[in-house]
Amino acid sequence: MSSSIGKNLKISIFGESHGRSIGVVVDGLPAGIPIDREDILLDMARRRAGRKPGSTKRVEADIPEIQSGIYEDHTTGTPLCAVIKNGDPHSQDYAALAGKPRPSHADYTSLVKYGGLQDLRGGGHFSGRLTAPLVFAGAVARAYLKTQGVVCGSHIACIGGIWDAAFDPLNVDEKTLARLRKSDFPVLDAARGREMAERIEKARMNKDSLGGIDECAVVGLPAGIGDPMFDGMESKIAAILFGVPGVKGVEFGRGFAMANLRGSEANDAMEMRDGKPAFLSNNSGGILGGITSGAPLIVRTCFKPTASIAQEQSTVDMNTKEDCRIVIKGRHDSCITVRGLVAAEAAVMIAVADAMLEGSKRI
Amino acid sequence: MSSSIGKNLKISIFGESHGRSIGVVVDGLPAGIPIDREDILLDMARRRAGRKPGSTKRVEADIPEIQSGIYEDHTTGTPLCAVIKNGDPHSQDYAALAGKPRPSHADYTSLVKYGGLQDLRGGGHFSGRLTAPLVFAGAVARAYLKTQGVVCGSHIACIGGIWDAAFDPLNVDEKTLARLRKSDFPVLDAARGREMAERIEKARMNKDSLGGIDECAVVGLPAGIGDPMFDGMESKIAAILFGVPGVKGVEFGRGFAMANLRGSEANDAMEMRDGKPAFLSNNSGGILGGITSGAPLIVRTCFKPTASIAQEQSTVDMNTKEDCRIVIKGRHDSCITVRGLVAAEAAVMIAVADAMLEGSKRI
Amino acid sequence: MSSSIGKNLKISIFGESHGRSIGVVVDGLPAGIPIDREDILLDMARRRAGRKPGSTKRVEADIPEIQSGIYEDHTTGTPLCAVIKNGDPHSQDYAALAGKPRPSHADYTSLVKYGGLQDLRGGGHFSGRLTAPLVFAGAVARAYLKTQGVVCGSHIACIGGIWDAAFDPLNVDEKTLARLRKSDFPVLDAARGREMAERIEKARMNKDSLGGIDECAVVGLPAGIGDPMFDGMESKIAAILFGVPGVKGVEFGRGFAMANLRGSEANDAMEMRDGKPAFLSNNSGGILGGITSGAPLIVRTCFKPTASIAQEQSTVDMNTKEDCRIVIKGRHDSCITVRGLVAAEAAVMIAVADAMLEGSKRI
Amino acid sequence: MSSSIGKNLKISIFGESHGRSIGVVVDGLPAGIPIDREDILLDMARRRAGRKPGSTKRVEADIPEIQSGIYEDHTTGTPLCAVIKNGDPHSQDYAALAGKPRPSHADYTSLVKYGGLQDLRGGGHFSGRLTAPLVFAGAVARAYLKTQGVVCGSHIACIGGIWDAAFDPLNVDEKTLARLRKSDFPVLDAARGREMAERIEKARMNKDSLGGIDECAVVGLPAGIGDPMFDGMESKIAAILFGVPGVKGVEFGRGFAMANLRGSEANDAMEMRDGKPAFLSNNSGGILGGITSGAPLIVRTCFKPTASIAQEQSTVDMNTKEDCRIVIKGRHDSCITVRGLVAAEAAVMIAVADAMLEGSKRI
Repeated sequence: MSSSIGKNLKISIFGESHGRSIGVVVDGLPAGIPIDREDILLDMARRRAGRKPGSTKRVEADIPEIQSGIYEDHTTGTPLCAVIKNGDPHSQDYAALAGKPRPSHADYTSLVKYGGLQDLRGGGHFSGRLTAPLVFAGAVARAYLKTQGVVCGSHIACIGGIWDAAFDPLNVDEKTLARLRKSDFPVLDAARGREMAERIEKARMNKDSLGGIDECAVVGLPAGIGDPMFDGMESKIAAILFGVPGVKGVEFGRGFAMANLRGSEANDAMEMRDGKPAFLSNNSGGILGGITSGAPLIVRTCFKPTASIAQEQSTVDMNTKEDCRIVIKGRHDSCITVRGLVAAEAAVMIAVADAMLEGSKRI
Repeated sequence: MSSSIGKNLKISIFGESHGRSIGVVVDGLPAGIPIDREDILLDMARRRAGRKPGSTKRVEADIPEIQSGIYEDHTTGTPLCAVIKNGDPHSQDYAALAGKPRPSHADYTSLVKYGGLQDLRGGGHFSGRLTAPLVFAGAVARAYLKTQGVVCGSHIACIGGIWDAAFDPLNVDEKTLARLRKSDFPVLDAARGREMAERIEKARMNKDSLGGIDECAVVGLPAGIGDPMFDGMESKIAAILFGVPGVKGVEFGRGFAMANLRGSEANDAMEMRDGKPAFLSNNSGGILGGITSGAPLIVRTCFKPTASIAQEQSTVDMNTKEDCRIVIKGRHDSCITVRGLVAAEAAVMIAVADAMLEGSKRI
Repeated sequence: MSSSIGKNLKISIFGESHGRSIGVVVDGLPAGIPIDREDILLDMARRRAGRKPGSTKRVEADIPEIQSGIYEDHTTGTPLCAVIKNGDPHSQDYAALAGKPRPSHADYTSLVKYGGLQDLRGGGHFSGRLTAPLVFAGAVARAYLKTQGVVCGSHIACIGGIWDAAFDPLNVDEKTLARLRKSDFPVLDAARGREMAERIEKARMNKDSLGGIDECAVVGLPAGIGDPMFDGMESKIAAILFGVPGVKGVEFGRGFAMANLRGSEANDAMEMRDGKPAFLSNNSGGILGGITSGAPLIVRTCFKPTASIAQEQSTVDMNTKEDCRIVIKGRHDSCITVRGLVAAEAAVMIAVADAMLEGSKRI
Repeated sequence: MSSSIGKNLKISIFGESHGRSIGVVVDGLPAGIPIDREDILLDMARRRAGRKPGSTKRVEADIPEIQSGIYEDHTTGTPLCAVIKNGDPHSQDYAALAGKPRPSHADYTSLVKYGGLQDLRGGGHFSGRLTAPLVFAGAVARAYLKTQGVVCGSHIACIGGIWDAAFDPLNVDEKTLARLRKSDFPVLDAARGREMAERIEKARMNKDSLGGIDECAVVGLPAGIGDPMFDGMESKIAAILFGVPGVKGVEFGRGFAMANLRGSEANDAMEMRDGKPAFLSNNSGGILGGITSGAPLIVRTCFKPTASIAQEQSTVDMNTKEDCRIVIKGRHDSCITVRGLVAAEAAVMIAVADAMLEGSKRI
């Protein structure tokens, strides 16, 4: 098995980078969600290459062709399938690499697992291109979340050691989220954004790449969503996020910084505010015991540097069993965090929608 | 749903902290795994309170009573259930807290979700005590992994800002893992361990608690285990890890440090060694494209500081709708990382066993 | 995997006939279901041996000991585990049969699959005794269904060629269902019941056994429950029913008799009645397109004759690889349909509850 | 959720009768299965309308366009998606029926469930047309089964009360199965087949339809496939079969006839034959305790008469809340059993492949 996940909202992703098409089936959507095609295309465009600092020059229209599940601009309640045609592949770029695993790609592990039967041109099913159907599914989840008053947005938290300002975890502004969604290079602090872009450009000039972190917030979530233990929000979100190529770390709230905190600093005390329970801090990232607390849900995702770099690298020739050196040609992002942010946001929205679609747990 | 997970090896955990018993059903084990009761009790003892710096004084025997699935010291292939009796509860410690959510516990979210119908004494089903059946299931997974030549071990990587030495990701020694497993306070660098213990003791004296990070390694794994995207090793492992109470971050290989690396630093180049492909570095933590590479699998887990601290804290009274102050009595770890390490290790082993039990993906 | 099923209401059954205990974890129950212990014991008693024509003389108290998930007589919303101790095993009855598969039992297939590692005394995990935890889970599902105004009941439809009257599929009476539930030998036509009992007794005298069919009805179900295709009511119900030992056929509404009908006879026409759509017939058994129609749900289950008969039978000795003859000793029902009816009813209730606990499919 | 099923081989079906396309994602296939496009088209042709007695005149090419998962005529091991374009829809045939549920269709239940948001033209997602992607997935499963020496075939067992000869359950001939697969109207006894065809024609002349039963056999299966209880072969097969529109009953081996048998007649005794254990009868249909016995697996599926008949029928107008009479126009099979057989065979093959792809249950 591989590319299916979800309990109440189930997605099943298919396709290879250089095959006929890629796409996704989304099963479990309720009937009646208004679908705004332009809004979906906005997310597709955000993910698409060629617009942003550090993005590959490979440009594909990435128009999802909806096969089913939408009728008169609303979901029908039965499975929705979207197909995205592949085009513009430079397959010859990969011919020289056959049997020579590109370092830190899935080439080696895929060769071992599938015995060379995968179509590994462009990474095949392991390609970052497979995030296009994920982003589509996320955009559909966004349409559902909108009907529930829930909004999700992200900014680049760190690239190459340069840190953006952080979300205020108690008070994430919907307007800010909307602005970030429309930005090609979404940051809270524009000056830091320019520094990041410079670092990316410098890495590109050096035939190198950079890693980074994005920060995602979900606001408008009621308290009480999610279930204990393995169906908690963190588990659901992380399981999808780690399915995004290049993700090597996921943290909620203060995350790994918790290791340097005392309980008296980390605990989120409460008070009554306007007649309702409210939090004095949100180090927990809006999740306690796997269940939403009503405070903004905050999650950060770390992407490794793009594995495809233009420098010569050492690898092995699986056929001759000899060491060899390779140079990866083709068009590649210098920093996948920029576009990966859109995929990570999609992953979070799919997981949150899945949890919200759970039936009631109270008589 | 809540406390069930797994595809090939399915676990279903039940119980509340102050109820009759807690336990787990493990379904999907192959027949014929030799079960060494002493080895299982070793893991149960590692998790148990009362032995370690920073652990609660609540002491329970935690002897898993095996109901089914083992016959003549071998697994039968049908579901294994173990029940662990509860005892020694100080339920009166919780009476004063009814309706007053303890900060950063699941009390508030649970009250909202279940409408006060949970038995929240001691945290109920959300208690850290529920890691006992998880550790049992992990010990059974360990017995399976042993038949496949796979070994798993952990050390405390960081507590309160003090960092232990790190595993050498290319060369984790089975002997070291065995030694760590027998230690009450497993660290690679004993001096750092003593510093950590001092910090914990100091926090305890201040009625406070500390967060931390543990690092877990799995060695002996063949390449080719795991599946692309959402059934990748990272997704499987993280989904279980985030089900462990108190976990707020999970990272693989270099993890969040990837944000500060260039591709030329982060990529794991390869060479032929003794006629076999081998890695020159292991920043990927033994996983590429969700699939094991044959290098050691390295995962780090961040635990928040124990939420139960002895200081007075601000919260709300859900009944009177007023602010209030509470003091949490009872026995609590000053640093859950120490025992959480055993639960995290169990989570990793369960996920790895689940992946190894997948049927072949090649004709 | 083996003994776990369900999406919204998940059950995981464990145990062997002659092991320490058998039981079940029920995960996904909403909080707040009132649990009437006497009502659960009534179902356990209905299933228990020793009371009915054709039942084995093996008598076990079969008191489910609830470990978790119930607090102050209501479900908590977290997993419920019940353990039923085994007692009164006559293991020596099975010693002579080691390696000699009893005809039409799972002995042979289990030996092939698990290599002799199962504890096959009494059938091990394949024993009809494993229906006890299923019946317990069904009784809990019944408690949930009661809160939704849904009632389920069954009668013996046929034994040894003698047919009881059938339910009127448009008008199943709750009082009748209640009466059937309290009967040791539930039939609609008492005279036919006496004939059946005579046949069973005659079979027993001849060291033989009989097959049969039970008919189960669910009333009070709203229209709109269930999902298309593989999550339809028939699929959900059949998947659990065929997990009950001895079941070889499942049909809904007119079922196999549909093969002899014309569309003009089989179709369920509609009319307005008291301002609401109503059916003129219910050949569909209350399910159209996998979704409940609001008419009573009708399902029939066929049980094979008890495989354990007291006559000498031909089998093979798996150790000596020779033909042999065996006589099965021990206590066995002459007709498992009588008690199987209770298990089948439980299976239906679990599946119906699972479908009703699905989140809404409409915005 | 609705149209996804499977554990090791997961299928996710999408599409509506009159939408853009229908199709399926098949996830979990091992790499390296040779895919013979002609052999797949043979199954598609068998299912397609217009060739057979009793089939609708709606003719669509039904050419599955493979989007992914196949490379150089072999499966890659990653998800396979096939899309089948819709064409030739007579949507106007349905306009007159809006809000007037056709008797024994899913129109009423779908309206209640989804609030009229489904595209119900032609039955929408509930249409028998959705069996085309199921048959495609079945054909792919057949290609896998072929690599394991497993063959599956079916004949029409009964239509309108006329019974074909039955398979000899101990000795189903692969040649016969191959012949049946190539027949437009597959029966064992040609004379009975002609009688059935006459009955169908007569029903059609009377603007009526007929129900029927098909019988499916799987040969070459090793013993030991399948798992106890809810992952038994019967549960797996029935869950998919009941997802096929129009199926109202499923039975294995002697099935419902077991109700008239004594244990001494029903039990399958064993003997050694050519040094191996063998069965003297196969009333169990090749399954004991949910696990294959090595004897042919035999399953029968009952289809109701086509619900769409040309006669005037009574129904309700959901908008005006009044009784009304409707006449269903369009092109419809007089007996869906003929083509349903192909879908049922696909369902069986998918379930069997799923079970065979389970990892080993023995160390």
